[in-house]
This record gives sequence, C-alpha cells and structure tokens, in this order.
Amino acid sequence: MRLSQFHLATVKEVPADAEIASHQLMLRAGMIRKLASGLYTWSPLGLRVLRKVERIVREEMDRAGALELLMPTIQPRELWEETGRWAKFGPQLLKIRDRKEQEFCYAPTAEEVITDYARNELKSYKQLPVNFYQIQTKFRDEIRPRFGVMRAREFLMKDAYSFHLTQESLAETYAAMYQAYSRVFTRLGLTFRAVQADTGAIGGNASHEFQVLADSGEDAIAFSDGSDYAANLEKAEALAPAAARPAAAATLQRVDTPTQKTIDDVSAFLKVSPRQCVKTLLVRGRDGLVALCLRGDHEINEVKAGKLAELPDESVLASEEEILAATGTRPGFIGPVGLPESIPVIVDRDAAVLADFVCGGNADRTHYSGANWERDARITRIADLRNVVEGDLSPDGHGVLHIARGIEVGHVFQLGTKYAEALDASVVDETGKLQVMTMGCYGIGVSRIVAAAIEQRHDDAGIVWPEAMAPWRVAVCVINPKHSPAVSAAAEALYQALGERGIEAVLDDRGVRAGSMFADMELIGIPHRVVVSERGLAAGTLEYRGREDSESRSLGEDELFALLA
Amino acid sequence: MRLSQFHLATVKEVPADAEIASHQLMLRAGMIRKLASGLYTWSPLGLRVLRKVERIVREEMDRAGALELLMPTIQPRELWEETGRWAKFGPQLLKIRDRKEQEFCYAPTAEEVITDYARNELKSYKQLPVNFYQIQTKFRDEIRPRFGVMRAREFLMKDAYSFHLTQESLAETYAAMYQAYSRVFTRLGLTFRAVQADTGAIGGNASHEFQVLADSGEDAIAFSDGSDYAANLEKAEALAPAAARPAAAATLQRVDTPTQKTIDDVSAFLKVSPRQCVKTLLVRGRDGLVALCLRGDHEINEVKAGKLAELPDESVLASEEEILAATGTRPGFIGPVGLPESIPVIVDRDAAVLADFVCGGNADRTHYSGANWERDARITRIADLRNVVEGDLSPDGHGVLHIARGIEVGHVFQLGTKYAEALDASVVDETGKLQVMTMGCYGIGVSRIVAAAIEQRHDDAGIVWPEAMAPWRVAVCVINPKHSPAVSAAAEALYQALGERGIEAVLDDRGVRAGSMFADMELIGIPHRVVVSERGLAAGTLEYRGREDSESRSLGEDELFALLA
Repeated sequence: MRLSQFHLATVKEVPADAEIASHQLMLRAGMIRKLASGLYTWSPLGLRVLRKVERIVREEMDRAGALELLMPTIQPRELWEETGRWAKFGPQLLKIRDRKEQEFCYAPTAEEVITDYARNELKSYKQLPVNFYQIQTKFRDEIRPRFGVMRAREFLMKDAYSFHLTQESLAETYAAMYQAYSRVFTRLGLTFRAVQADTGAIGGNASHEFQVLADSGEDAIAFSDGSDYAANLEKAEALAPAAARPAAAATLQRVDTPTQKTIDDVSAFLKVSPRQCVKTLLVRGRDGLVALCLRGDHEINEVKAGKLAELPDESVLASEEEILAATGTRPGFIGPVGLPESIPVIVDRDAAVLADFVCGGNADRTHYSGANWERDARITRIADLRNVVEGDLSPDGHGVLHIARGIEVGHVFQLGTKYAEALDASVVDETGKLQVMTMGCYGIGVSRIVAAAIEQRHDDAGIVWPEAMAPWRVAVCVINPKHSPAVSAAAEALYQALGERGIEAVLDDRGVRAGSMFADMELIGIPHRVVVSERGLAAGTLEYRGREDSESRSLGEDELFALLA
Repeated sequence: MRLSQFHLATVKEVPADAEIASHQLMLRAGMIRKLASGLYTWSPLGLRVLRKVERIVREEMDRAGALELLMPTIQPRELWEETGRWAKFGPQLLKIRDRKEQEFCYAPTAEEVITDYARNELKSYKQLPVNFYQIQTKFRDEIRPRFGVMRAREFLMKDAYSFHLTQESLAETYAAMYQAYSRVFTRLGLTFRAVQADTGAIGGNASHEFQVLADSGEDAIAFSDGSDYAANLEKAEALAPAAARPAAAATLQRVDTPTQKTIDDVSAFLKVSPRQCVKTLLVRGRDGLVALCLRGDHEINEVKAGKLAELPDESVLASEEEILAATGTRPGFIGPVGLPESIPVIVDRDAAVLADFVCGGNADRTHYSGANWERDARITRIADLRNVVEGDLSPDGHGVLHIARGIEVGHVFQLGTKYAEALDASVVDETGKLQVMTMGCYGIGVSRIVAAAIEQRHDDAGIVWPEAMAPWRVAVCVINPKHSPAVSAAAEALYQALGERGIEAVLDDRGVRAGSMFADMELIGIPHRVVVSERGLAAGTLEYRGREDSESRSLGEDELFALLA
C-alpha cells in the first residue's frame, strides 16, 4: 500500500472521553471513529488489524475441524422465549419490533438459534460430534459503553457451539478448542493465560477464560511460574500451610488500643507483624451472624465465602448495630476470643496455624495479645477463605503464584444440556433411543482483542503491534520524495522488492516531514521502519529501526531482507 | 474437506413455499435454512459459496483502489433526520429504540453514516478523490420477503461511496467502478449486462445496473448483439425508422367490426397485419385527455409516456365513461381519425410512418381502413412511446437488439451533491474556498449473487456452479470405501495430490451408495466429478464427468490433473 493512496488519519490530541490507553491510541492512530455511544466505525487502518485477527481465528477454528456458518443478527423472540432468556437476559438485549409488530432481538449471542438449527439438522448420533462457528456482528446494549471497542455495544465476535452425545465427546472437543485458542493467542503474539473460571450461575462443568495480560485489565489472575496453572483470583485455591500450628508460648493479655482499629494501626502500635494478627469479620449468615477469621495480611475472598454452607451466595457484613448487640463492642475491636457460642467461628487455613497472635478484644479500645486457638478461642471450622497472594504455592504443587491483571478475550465453556433440553434438541443414539444433546460453547471477542493487544503493548510513542497484528509489517519511509527522484525511485524499488518476497510493507510516499512521518509510524505501531534518504543512498545503506529499538542502525538491503524473512 | 467431517444436508423434498429455482435448490442443497420470514442461516456449504463471492468482490474493490472500512449496522436517527430519510425511507427502515429510548435504525444502506464520516475526516481537496467501501450485513424490512436470499430482509451487501471535488473526478471513479464490477461478474463466471438505468426520483447524473441474465429475472433488458449497448427495457430508445412514410394510396373507408375490439381480432378479421394497424390509448393528461398512437404490434412504454410534457409521471388510462364522453364510443373502437381538436394526438415514431392503416372508427363496432396521417388524422407530435422489441436496431447504431430478463446484482450511481449538501460535507479547494463534495455510490448484493447465479445456471439435477463460485471445484467420489481399503487409500491419495496442486477438492468418503453420492454432487453443483472404484483401480483409470457432460469418460491421473490445471 502506498500511503499517498490510503486514508491515514492520525490525530495529535488525546480525546477527552478516552480513559484507557487503547481507546486513546485507537482514536489517535485513526483506527476507529465514534458514531454514537458504543458504536464505532473501523477506519481502513483499524480494519486491517481487525481482519488479521479475524483471519487467524478463522484459520485455527478450521484447523480444529469446526465448520463455519452464518446466522442472522436479527433473531425471533419465540426462540428466546423457549429458553426463558427473552426476559432473563435483561436490558442488554436489544429488542426490536418489525413492520408487522413481530418481536425480534439483535443477537448478543446465539445459543438459541444454533440449538434450533441443530434440532432441525441433527437427527442421529452419526452426525455427532459437530462444532459450528460464525464470525459475526453482535450487539449488547451496555448501560455504560466505554473504553472504545473494549466495551462497545456493537462488536465482532467469533462464537462456536459444539454438539455431542456424551460428556466424553464434549470433553474432547473442549480440549481441542482450548488448544485452538492457545494457538490463536500465541500466533497473535500476545502474552495470555488460560484461566480456570468460575462457572457461576450458568452451571456447566468446566470453563476457562483466555486472558490477555495487561496492567489495566479488569480481572485479577493468579498463575504459577512452575506450571500452566492459572485461575481467576476468585477461583485460585490457597493451599493449607505445610507447617503445623506451633504450641502456645505466650499468655493471653488484654492490651489497650485506644484509637487503633485497623490491622495496620494495631500491628504498628503493638510492634507485631500483620502476619501475627488475626482479623475477624462478622457477616450475616443464613442463620444469624458468622465470624470469619483471617491472617492480618490477607484479604477475604467473597466467592469462597459465598460457598460456605453457613453463608448465602453473596454475604454482607453485619451492621454496627448488629455487631454491638452480639458482642458488646464496635467494628475494629472484634476478635474470636470470647465470642458468644451462637456465632460460628470459621477460620482461614493460614490464620488457623497461628499461635500467640494478636486479635480484637471484643471490648471497646482493647485487643488481645498472646492469643491461641483452642486454648483461648473456638474454631468451628477451618476453610480456604482468602485471596491468594504473590508468592503463595501453586495449588497444583508446581511453582509459586504470581498475580497479574488480565482482559478477557476468550471463553470456553462446557454448557451441558441446558439449551438442548430447553429447545428439545435430541438425536437418536446407537440403541435407537432419543437423547438430548450435550453442548459446548466457545467465544472470542475479535474486536476486543485489538484493544487488549494495545493495552498490553504500547509505549509513550504509541502502539507496539506484534508482527501478526500490525496493519503492515514494514514501513518504508521516503525522505523528501518530491525533491529527489533517485530517492523516490529507490524507495519504490525497495517497496516492490519487499512485496516480491512476501513481506507486507507500506510505502510512506506522502512527502511529509521526517519527524511527522516517524511519529505516525510509531503511533500506528509498525514493527519495522526503513528510511530511504539521499544520505543513505550515497552510502549504499538503509536506516533500519525496530519499533522497540532505542536507536537506528544501517543495513544493506540483503541484511534487511534476512532480518525480515 | 472430507465430507465425513462436514455437515452436508441435502434434502429430497422441494419445499412448499419456495417458488423459484434458486430458492428451491438452495434449500434442497442445504445451503440455507430459514430462521424466520426473510431471515436465513447460511449453512457451512452455503457460506463457502458466499465467501467466494465476497472474496472476489473484495479483491476487485482493492484492485480499483477503494479502501475497505466497517461501519456499524446500528445507526442513530439523528443522521437520518439530517437527510430527511428517517421519514422518507418508509417502513423498509427497521427502527429501534435502545434501553435509553434513543432511536436507531438497522442500516439498509449507509449514505448518511459515510457522509458523516467523510465530513469529519476529509478537510482538503488533497485528500480527494477517495472511495470507501464495506462488506456488511444490511437489513430491509420488506413487506413480503420471498424467493429466499433473493429478496431477504437481512442480507450481505458491498457498498462503496466515493468523494470528489469535481464531476470529472467522479466520472473517473465511476468508470473505474464500472470496470471493477465488470471484472467481478466476469471472474464469477456469470453472463451479465451492464445496463443503463433510469436515475429515477433519486436524481444524479448517470447510473448503470449490473444484471445477471436469467429467464426468471424481474427486469427486462434490451441489449445489442453488435456492441456493449444494454439498457433496461424502460430506458431503451426505439430509433425512428430509416424509411420515410409512403404516400397515401388507399381511400379512407369505414368497415364494420361487429365484435372485434383488440388488434389481433381486428387484423385477423380484416386480414391485415397488426403492423399495419394503429392502436390508440386515451390517457388522463395534465390538462384533459391525451391520445397515444402506436403500431398494432407494439407495446406502450410507461416510463417514456411519463416523460411527455402533456402527461403526469404515472399516466392512467381514461375510464370508459371519460372515453364515451370525449369520443362518443367505447374502448376498442377509438382511433385518431376525427378525434375532438381538444385531444392532443401523440404518435409513436413507428406508427407515424404508416400509410393506408387500419384504426378505430370512433363509433361503436366500426374501424377505418385506408387511413392516412395528415390527410385523415392529426399528428400533434411524434415521440418515442414504445418498448423496443427483439430485432430493433440498437440505438447506438451497432447491431440489433435482443430482449432478455435479468436480476439486478449491482448498481453504480453518480449521486452528485445530494447527501454531501444535506450533511454539509465540504472540503477546502485549491483556492482555499469551502466546496461541497460530489459523491458516487456503488452497491453489490453479495448474497443475492449466489441466488442469481443459480437462476442462471441450473438443470433438472441441481445447481451448475461456475468454477469460481463452486463450494469445491472437484468431488472425489469413493465407491464402497468401507469394503475396499485399496479404493479408500487411492481416493485419499488422489485427494491429497489434488490439494498439493492447489486444486480445491472434496472427498466424498461418507460411504453412501454411488447413486445418492452422484445425485448429491450434482445437486450441490460441483463442476468436476472423479470416481474412484475397484474397477477403475484395476484398469488404472479414473472415471471423470464434468457437471454439464452427458457421459463419463476414463482418464489417467495425469490427464485429470491437466484437465483441472
């Protein structure tokens, strides 16, 4: 592509409403333009990147044996009623009435339509397993669209749905999709983790999220440095400490803590580590208050707490009045010693191996030091209650955990029979009996990947594309093309030579100043830059600079070709 | 592709609601499945064809220098208000309210959004000309969706929009698009005509429709056998006859035609050719009745009539009462002889060169014979009033016209400044003055092409794809693969060998009976079929049959490769 024939539309100003780097950079690079809230036009530059992602996704889906089809974006209400999701999906579902007052929605996902397709198309176990996918525009009417294409209303998604007779067959396709997704993100050149995800309210048997790591990510991820283990922070297990609880050595003493309520204040005041303190949370259980005890340096994991039999799915801290009524003191001074018998005391694994610890005194302005479990305080039950932290042992026994933030760009899910049952999608099995199919579903946020890649890979000058996603791999920059026919001809020849070698290049023949040209190529993130100038021509060399290099270097043409091969 | 790994879903029954061949065959071949009225899922088989069309369209748009982008399918009401089309577009526009009660539509076309994009992006004449295109889902809420994807509500369209400073620049891009479209349909292997189209109510300067010829087409087209001339029947000019009107020879005679009202009846009764008769239509003009006279064998062209100064755009025949009041007789017996002076007599070019003709007697149950213009009947004006017919001279002076039916699959249009003015899309010209841009627009019905190709190319056995559109070029059919490992291995080897030579093949390894297999491959329209069987293996030959061949023939493997190269 010759840039003089292209519509490059970089802008200098950082747009006021763009909060995150990818949104700012996509606007500044001229990759997208806002049409309305959550609706973006992909410019020629942006679309080049989007199509590269789309192509890699398609190639890996095809390689994994999935069959591409294309469903309508507009779907009839009747099917969504069959699964109950017409009502349950909530206001994210964009509902539409046509000229005949029939109701439809703009597909936010396609379980209903594909299961309807499958119940009409699939009659026998001999047709299974089969995995259908599409790459199609979706719409979710977000209450607060933001972050550009990261959380847009209209977006491009690859969604796949597999159909099976047995759970074993589903597990096989699930594994194949897991591998295909890993290949996709590896080929894209992104640092990612396949993360065990909570299957949550949807149910189903297994689920992994594919997360592109980036500091700005919404999700916290724990992953091992010694294995493939990775999980959402909510899901990562904190192993029980290997060492047993030491014997009690200190005596229980009430100490005055006149103004110290937080662990940090108390530990500083008493000159003990927060690791030697126990913090106690009183929460509303299914049947009265429940005390949760953690080590002072640990944080409660609400998902884990929600799975305790004593607690509802979403636990709520007790109010100051409830605490006062139950313990006679206020928040900040509660502790396990001397709590009323009616309150179960559930202790985190790490808190449970402490001895001689500091904890709240259950009386205003006092704490205990030298406290010990069993001797001074009840343990109703020991459980995993906390978020894992950097340096914890990996739950699979290999390596230690690190914590990073991630952006969810893919999700594989063993759906089970939920949709097939609702829509009565059955096939005849080997014995001639009708059997409801088992399903998997597998999504990739194609347009979101573009933004996530920028979140992971950018610097002060702009985007730093991995080679596979760059709009072009190489920029051939021509200095003063209008003033030197020789330079212009040499640049054109180099551009042609790159093309003949299958190296995708863009020729910046716009004739803009070198500084602007370089700034543009850095902003739009071209991995390799070659400058053709009179000076270089005289010396018989080209000035090369990789996007992440700190300096340029001179290369002969053959060296350049070898470097880019 | 191995068919055992594919979802082939041919069906035997002709679906009841499918009226035309392409709709029936797309359903029988399992290319599409209906989701709701005017909404179709493209199966893996159908999508293969759709994507091939899409790829060729994209390649030719890129080659012509157009820049691909991607606009949202959901567009805000505000922009459509700026051009007045929110109201004017009518009920085909699918209107939508989001969760915040903001109004949007599902794009049926994108002039508003692209012009908005252009007014923000294009500031200077230096950025012109530029031609943006997208290949994107569109929606038109047809009152009566039918004929499958031929007239679906949701469909895939390529729409391009070019921006210019001058009409000359627009004409250049228009010519380039005309060439690109010609290349697209040539590469697709379809018989088509680029047809001069009426620019109609939209205005603009020039317009061509690209029509795929097919007997079932909705549009009648006249095209020359001696040049590129082609036009919609409504638009094709009927040249004035070369010969002058002969001198009057007969005397005017009133003849009884007791029951003969139509030209056919009268000419048979009086034993004269319909070519020697004049038929007269009385229509409601802007200012009283108007008589239109045509040769007996010709048909009125309503578009041409609508352009007469005396007539409104859509003329209506006078009622029996009006005719009776004006002429004293009833329809069937009207003629130009003796019509009241208040009625203008507008005579078609061919009718105007008749002498000694037969015409209505302006009295019940009589006609005239031996009538002559000027002597017996007034001519207010001579005009081109008729549809051209097979054998007419081409208006460009080269060859004679043929009439065919066509399906519109593309449209190029010089829009002018209509949208740019409405949306105030201006650039600075060479003199620093703001100037409204001139636009062209260029559409291709990508999904419609698939149906149109089938209308043009099918037989009793099914679809007859051109090579460029076929889901696969070659079918390798394996006879009894489960009973002969040698046959199975030979077929697999042939399939691999074809792939290595870049020849796209499908291996029918399903193990179904030969008859069903052949019927399937013919139904889905694979251009080349090769059979691998024990008998052929023994003889060292392959049984080859082209889709349009009447018989199979034996080929060596090298002969086959040469034939498919």
